[in-house]
Amino acid sequence: MSTPQPITLRGQAIAHGKLPLICTPLVGRSLEALMAELAVVLPKQPDVLEWRIDHFAPIADTSAVIAAAHAIKKAAGELPLLFTRRSTLEGGEPIPLTEAQVIALYQAVCESQCIDLIDYEMANDPAHIAQVRAFARANSVALVLSFHNFVETPAPEALVAKFLLAEQLGADVAKVAVMPRDLDDVLTLLSATRQASQQLQIPLISMSMGPYGAVSRLVGGVFGSALSFAVGAASSAPGQVPIEDLAAVLRVLERAMGR
Amino acid sequence: MSTPQPITLRGQAIAHGKLPLICTPLVGRSLEALMAELAVVLPKQPDVLEWRIDHFAPIADTSAVIAAAHAIKKAAGELPLLFTRRSTLEGGEPIPLTEAQVIALYQAVCESQCIDLIDYEMANDPAHIAQVRAFARANSVALVLSFHNFVETPAPEALVAKFLLAEQLGADVAKVAVMPRDLDDVLTLLSATRQASQQLQIPLISMSMGPYGAVSRLVGGVFGSALSFAVGAASSAPGQVPIEDLAAVLRVLERAMGR
Repeated sequence: MSTPQPITLRGQAIAHGKLPLICTPLVGRSLEALMAELAVVLPKQPDVLEWRIDHFAPIADTSAVIAAAHAIKKAAGELPLLFTRRSTLEGGEPIPLTEAQVIALYQAVCESQCIDLIDYEMANDPAHIAQVRAFARANSVALVLSFHNFVETPAPEALVAKFLLAEQLGADVAKVAVMPRDLDDVLTLLSATRQASQQLQIPLISMSMGPYGAVSRLVGGVFGSALSFAVGAASSAPGQVPIEDLAAVLRVLERAMGR
Repeated sequence: MSTPQPITLRGQAIAHGKLPLICTPLVGRSLEALMAELAVVLPKQPDVLEWRIDHFAPIADTSAVIAAAHAIKKAAGELPLLFTRRSTLEGGEPIPLTEAQVIALYQAVCESQCIDLIDYEMANDPAHIAQVRAFARANSVALVLSFHNFVETPAPEALVAKFLLAEQLGADVAKVAVMPRDLDDVLTLLSATRQASQQLQIPLISMSMGPYGAVSRLVGGVFGSALSFAVGAASSAPGQVPIEDLAAVLRVLERAMGR
């Protein structure tokens, strides 16, 4: 049985190599809201937490962000934390920061040693990507380079090219999330995932979004995606299923396919 | 959301149009074994039962077959019964009957009014297929014309052609089951299913078999398959999952995709 490559942190596969990982987003606007989210999410036992910092109101206050990151890390214990500012161009919330300020925030957070992975869009200025890659590596933070299209699903070769671009840009993990217009687009995403997983040296994450795409969040691991996002307390993108539902389907797939 | 066409019996969609249907095979070698199987299977609430007559030792005794069919029908109540002699060329058990005797058995069973659907391989002699179609129609029994390949997965256009051939030959339902050699073959089967479901006027059933293919038994309904086979008591083909597992995944898909 073919298997996705596992996502590693400092040489160790997350969750002892479990595939695919379940990642739950945190979208609280305040520290209190984040703590309340964690109280709901943690008992559901995700494998990774993604903190969507573009939802955090005090994002411009670096010390508040770092204090919140420490608080999340303390509550989450061993759970790896993925830190993500999703740009408005790719589906994120508006934030009052320039891109240079975002880079500075990313650097401060990497240096705080309380996050494990960081997500940055591969469409950003290559100089910015090089900067993020450098301080991520210097702090043993894994770099996810991501691509999102909330309107359509590019052609299969264009999707594969996005995974390859992430690798070329120095990513530790390549992520591609696209919107299907029909179920053929869902099969296109799964097929491109399968193809890219056979070509890349790094692990990858993919999903087709929205109601049509939900099936890809459930079975994407079969075709090469190393991680799937699922709802613990609140969704961060269309089509995410509850963590309990994803976990139930993964158990069935494991029994059925011997994974 | 696109939906498979439902399988109908005498103008009524089976299980009030539930899609996909769950069909559980019965493979008992004797009437006693079949009754024991039913005692295990019926509480699991499949939507359809398939009686694999090639597993039934007294298959050469038409009156024993019809008596058993009546006994199954009585135990199963409203559950539709699919009657299938799977040929050894397509994965069935050896039986001591000529093809002419099989046709005679099919006719007697159709005329007994205790079965609802009948499966015959589309690779059979067209004259035999025409005979089966005629007495199936005369007795309001739905005809499934099927194709199985336990070695490989034909090319996408060849798969679509098999679905179309079933329709051309007068099937009420077209069924295609093939063996994948890798996960690309599983995507090929799902893609051909999707394409055929948009071209055919009749409902279709498809699956990719074995461990790789198990995922297609879980999500095939999303891509146009109207029915999936799942294990109640004993499996009849490689990769079938337990009925409880299939039902759990179908519930998740329904919530996630609004089906």
